[in-house]
Parts: sequence; structure tokens; C-alpha cells
Amino acid sequence: MKQQGIDSLLITHLPDVRYLCGFTGSNAFLAVTPNRATMFTDGRYIAQAHQETSAARVVIAKAARDASCRWLAASGVKHCAFDPETTTVADLALYRKAGGSRGFFQPLAEPLVRNLRLIKDEDELRLMKRAAHLGVDLFHELLPQLQPGMPETAVAALLENSARGRGAEGMSFETIVASGPRSALPHGRATAQRLPRKGFLTLDFGVILEGYCSDMTRTVFLGQPTRRERFTYDAVREAQQAAVEAVKPGVSCGEVDEAARSVLRKAGLAEYFTHSTGHGVGLEIHEAPRIAADQSQSLLPGMVVTIEPGVYIEDHFGVRIEDMVVVTRQGGQVLTPASTGWTQL
Amino acid sequence: MKQQGIDSLLITHLPDVRYLCGFTGSNAFLAVTPNRATMFTDGRYIAQAHQETSAARVVIAKAARDASCRWLAASGVKHCAFDPETTTVADLALYRKAGGSRGFFQPLAEPLVRNLRLIKDEDELRLMKRAAHLGVDLFHELLPQLQPGMPETAVAALLENSARGRGAEGMSFETIVASGPRSALPHGRATAQRLPRKGFLTLDFGVILEGYCSDMTRTVFLGQPTRRERFTYDAVREAQQAAVEAVKPGVSCGEVDEAARSVLRKAGLAEYFTHSTGHGVGLEIHEAPRIAADQSQSLLPGMVVTIEPGVYIEDHFGVRIEDMVVVTRQGGQVLTPASTGWTQL
Repeated sequence: MKQQGIDSLLITHLPDVRYLCGFTGSNAFLAVTPNRATMFTDGRYIAQAHQETSAARVVIAKAARDASCRWLAASGVKHCAFDPETTTVADLALYRKAGGSRGFFQPLAEPLVRNLRLIKDEDELRLMKRAAHLGVDLFHELLPQLQPGMPETAVAALLENSARGRGAEGMSFETIVASGPRSALPHGRATAQRLPRKGFLTLDFGVILEGYCSDMTRTVFLGQPTRRERFTYDAVREAQQAAVEAVKPGVSCGEVDEAARSVLRKAGLAEYFTHSTGHGVGLEIHEAPRIAADQSQSLLPGMVVTIEPGVYIEDHFGVRIEDMVVVTRQGGQVLTPASTGWTQL
Repeated sequence: MKQQGIDSLLITHLPDVRYLCGFTGSNAFLAVTPNRATMFTDGRYIAQAHQETSAARVVIAKAARDASCRWLAASGVKHCAFDPETTTVADLALYRKAGGSRGFFQPLAEPLVRNLRLIKDEDELRLMKRAAHLGVDLFHELLPQLQPGMPETAVAALLENSARGRGAEGMSFETIVASGPRSALPHGRATAQRLPRKGFLTLDFGVILEGYCSDMTRTVFLGQPTRRERFTYDAVREAQQAAVEAVKPGVSCGEVDEAARSVLRKAGLAEYFTHSTGHGVGLEIHEAPRIAADQSQSLLPGMVVTIEPGVYIEDHFGVRIEDMVVVTRQGGQVLTPASTGWTQL
């Protein structure tokens, strides 16, 4: 805050609040002044707020937002910064109504808390490894249970039930189970469709463990593939490996994306790779940085990103392979150690 | 739009987009002019967007937001309205950068799409009844399986696994399983804690079926209750019934809240009822209207709300009972027909 010349800050994005003071409730306004941090929430969270919150005083208020704004305005600071990316136009109008003179609330020039969250510390990496390994265990437990004729929703249920049984707090996003021609949908949530005798099956899923998200994708094959199917899989696998190997401190996100894309270009498949190569992951399933063509941001030790190129041939089939990778001084380290080799059921 | 003097509209809140044109992807900008509706999304959704979207033209663009803003600015309209409650300060800055002269983008005075969504039509009510009945079935299936010593997470897993098996797309929020003293946490997500031999167990859960959310809470008792526990349960039940009976077209949300609150006041328990009585539900788990003390909004036929008073005695126990209720011309109709009577396991 000192570096950016900010004398107070109102934090309302829930993962940011959790990151800074531990509170996990659904309504929170964390007000930070040079001397003091106060977390405002409502009466539903009286017990939980006191149990969970550290490094901030807890205030319970019926209108927690108004109370936090009034407290900031009365605290003697000149301005209060807010995050324009997580504050709605309507929220800002309410802040201004509740407290402070004209111009009291000012947008942050830099995403202060998000920048802190970009670099995971040792404790966070320990939790993220546990979450990632849980994901891998689920995949290995699932594989021998897969059979043609099983509805995609039953596959998702097997994964999600194991996740709960192993202590996950929940899934980190809606489980993607896309089989046969549906594998050509990059975001194909599980439907009543049954697994085919012959075709790809894409599984993209993650768990939440102590707040941290995992994310991985494997594409397996049922029956005998055509030459084109096998060729496509091998190209995606090569692209994914090239991007994982490109992960190093100082390399830009755009260069990592290009590492995957250039492999698919040589294979004549670049036009079917219709999304970016990956994204940061942590307390949220999608965080900074973006691993995409136009991103000049450099990788730094402690960042955790997904590497997930894919190829989607509409109405035919699709393949995606995804790992979580942490940036270390020595290069990228894969957190999701399940084979990416051709897997035929 | 004509009534509000709006000549174009940019809709970006995903449930609003789904409501208006059917698209369920995670990135969508629906631009509406007097003559035309165009839905902009990115390359991940090529196939899905064409499959799902009706009543709007689909445009696939790398930068869907910029493309939608530029298209609106070039469409010949004078202004474009946006929803200030679902548009961030940073989004608005990007809209302004991408297209239109100064003042082109203007906040809506009224939440246009949210107001449409407030009143469920017959098709929506049919889906919501199905979702609500699925929730009731899950509860009835779960009850005989509950036993002291079972971890709360295992209870959640049983519920969620049945939900998937019966075709739910997912849970509508993180399942709340709060047992023993944890029942005093209104939002106690399932933990590793085991069900006690003696004490309350609060189950608050919902499913998503064809996009629509269900939501219900039942509190059951394991073992023999004290007189105070039984008294508290009966008071919450009476409060919940009073509020359900208060639901009628023309009655204000504040009056419904007061119907529950006054019962608990007479029982000397009002100070332990630390939240509002309910909320609207539909494509989102929390929608308008709010059933709270300060709400003058009148109920109208077609609204669907939850009625969920609760009493929470910190470190001791808590009780909450919740139904979904649709407002009809004849009064409130409960969509979650599971007994709210005292249930002892």
C-alpha cells in the first residue's frame, strides 16, 4: 500500500478476503488502514467469523457494506482504494452513498491483492500439491470402472463421490465428461449420453481442498482408434509437453502458449486449437496469469498455471490434455503426475 | 426497452444471457438493438453456441467483449444500457475503450432482465417443481441411511451421489450438513465431524435441473432432545408456517418476514434469528426478491421464494426449516412437500 501511495483499502472479493484474513463466509468487507484491519460481515456469521478470522478485528453489522464504508470515512484517511475488477458499478455507487466525500473511493491502479496471490508461498504450494494429487488419485480410481454404455453423468458421479469420500470440500468447477462426438465440445458438462463403444472420452475435473483448487484433464479412448484419431492425440500430447517444458522463470506467458501452438501448427491442427493454453489456479479455479498468445507477463517462481492445449474437430472428436505446473527456479514442475500416454480402454 | 427509453442493451450476466437466448457457456455478451439480437462468445463455444442459442445471431470472436461493444457502437443507436449490478468498474472502462463516444454506455435505471426473471412463467414453474421434488426425494432417500458416527462429508456425499444418479446437473450450492453444536452455524458446510448420538442435524441443499435451482432445509434430531431443544424446534416450525401462510399476492416481503419474526419474538427467540426470512430462487440460487424486514416489494403471482427462518444458539445448537414457495393468485404453494414435523432418528 505504501509503495502505491494508498492510505486505505476496501477488499470485497471473497477469495481475496480469505487469502488475507482466513474468513470463508459469503459476505465480507475487509477495511484496511495504516494501523488496523477490520472485517465486516453480517449476523449469519457471528460464530464462524470469530473462529476463522485472524489478523483483522471482526465487526458484525446488519448492513456490513455500509458499516465498512462509514468506518473507513471516519478513520481519518484521505482516500480509500478499491479493486475495479471485482467492484460493480452499483457497488461503487453504494460505497459513495454510505461514506466519504466526493473522490474518497478511488480505483486501484494495480491489482494489489491479486498480485500477492499470484506467487504461492510454501504453505500454499503444499496445499495445492495435496489437491492436485487427490485429483490424480480420483482419475486412477475411475479408469478401471469406465465402460461403454455408462452415462456421462454416472462417470461424473463416480469421480465426485470418490472426491467427497477422500475429504474434498467440493469440486472446483462443474465436472466435464465429454464422450464420442461430444469430446469436440471443450466445455462439455456431463449429460445423460452414454459412453460409446468407440471414441474419445475427455475428463476435465478438479477438487477443492482447504480452499485451494486442482484442475486436470485426461482424454482416453474406448475401442480401436482410426489413424486420424491417434495422430491427433499424439500431436496434442506433444504440444502439451512442449508447453510444459517451456515453463521457466523469465519466459513470457505468450511464449509458453506459442510452444504448444507451434507444435499443432506443424501438425496442421492449429485452427482446431480454439482456446488459450492455460491459466493460473489457486484459491480460484481461474486466476492470473493467462497463458495466451498476447500475454507479455513473465513467469515467476511460485506461480501455478495449467497447461491444457486441445484440438476440437466439430461433430467428430476432440482431445485435451491438462496438467497443473508450478514455476520453480529450475523450471516447470508438474503437480498432476498421471501419465499423459495413449490410454485405450 | 421502449418503456424505459432504451435503444440498445448489453447483457453480460450469464444467467440473464441464458434466460434470454438459451446459451449456457461461461463467456457471453448479448447485444440487443431495436432490430436485432447478437450473442458474442469465443472459440471454445463454436459448436455449443450454435446448438443452444435461439432468438439471437451467434458471433464467434477472439475478444468477444470488444467485438460486442464495437458492433453496438457501429449499429446506429445513440446509447447502450448496461446493468450496473453485474458490470464491474473495470468492465465499464473496457466497454468505453472498445466502442462508442463518451456517454454511449449508460447504467440501466431499472434491472430490466432481472425484473423479467422475477416472474416465472409456466414452463419455468414446471422445471422448478421438478427440481424441488428431486430435492425432496433425495431427503427421503437419505433419512434411513443417517447414523451417529457418520462424517458430515459422507452425508453430503450420499445426497450428492443420489442427485447425480437421478439426473441433476449439479448441486445449486455447497451442501450444508451441520451436526451437534455446528448446527448453530447457519452456513456450516459439511466437515469431517461425525454425527453425534444426541443433537440436531441441519441439512440445507439443492440441485440444478435444466438450469433451475432447488433449495430446501430440514433439521432432524438424533437421540432424545432436551425440553429446550424441542421447544426451539417447535417455535421455528411455527414461525416457518406463519411466514408460508403470509405469502399472498400484494403482501410485502417485509410483512412475510415479520410473520416469522413475530412468532419467534413471542417465544423469546427473536435475537437468535440472525438472518432474513428468505430469497427468490430460479436460474440462480439467490435472486430477487429478498424476504427481509426492510423490503417493501410486493409479492406477485409467479414469484418463487424460500421461507427459511432459523434460530442459532452459539456453541449449543441451531434449527432451520426451509421450503420453496411459489406465489399464486390463491396464495403461497409449497414446492418442497416434505414434512416439517419433528423428526427423531
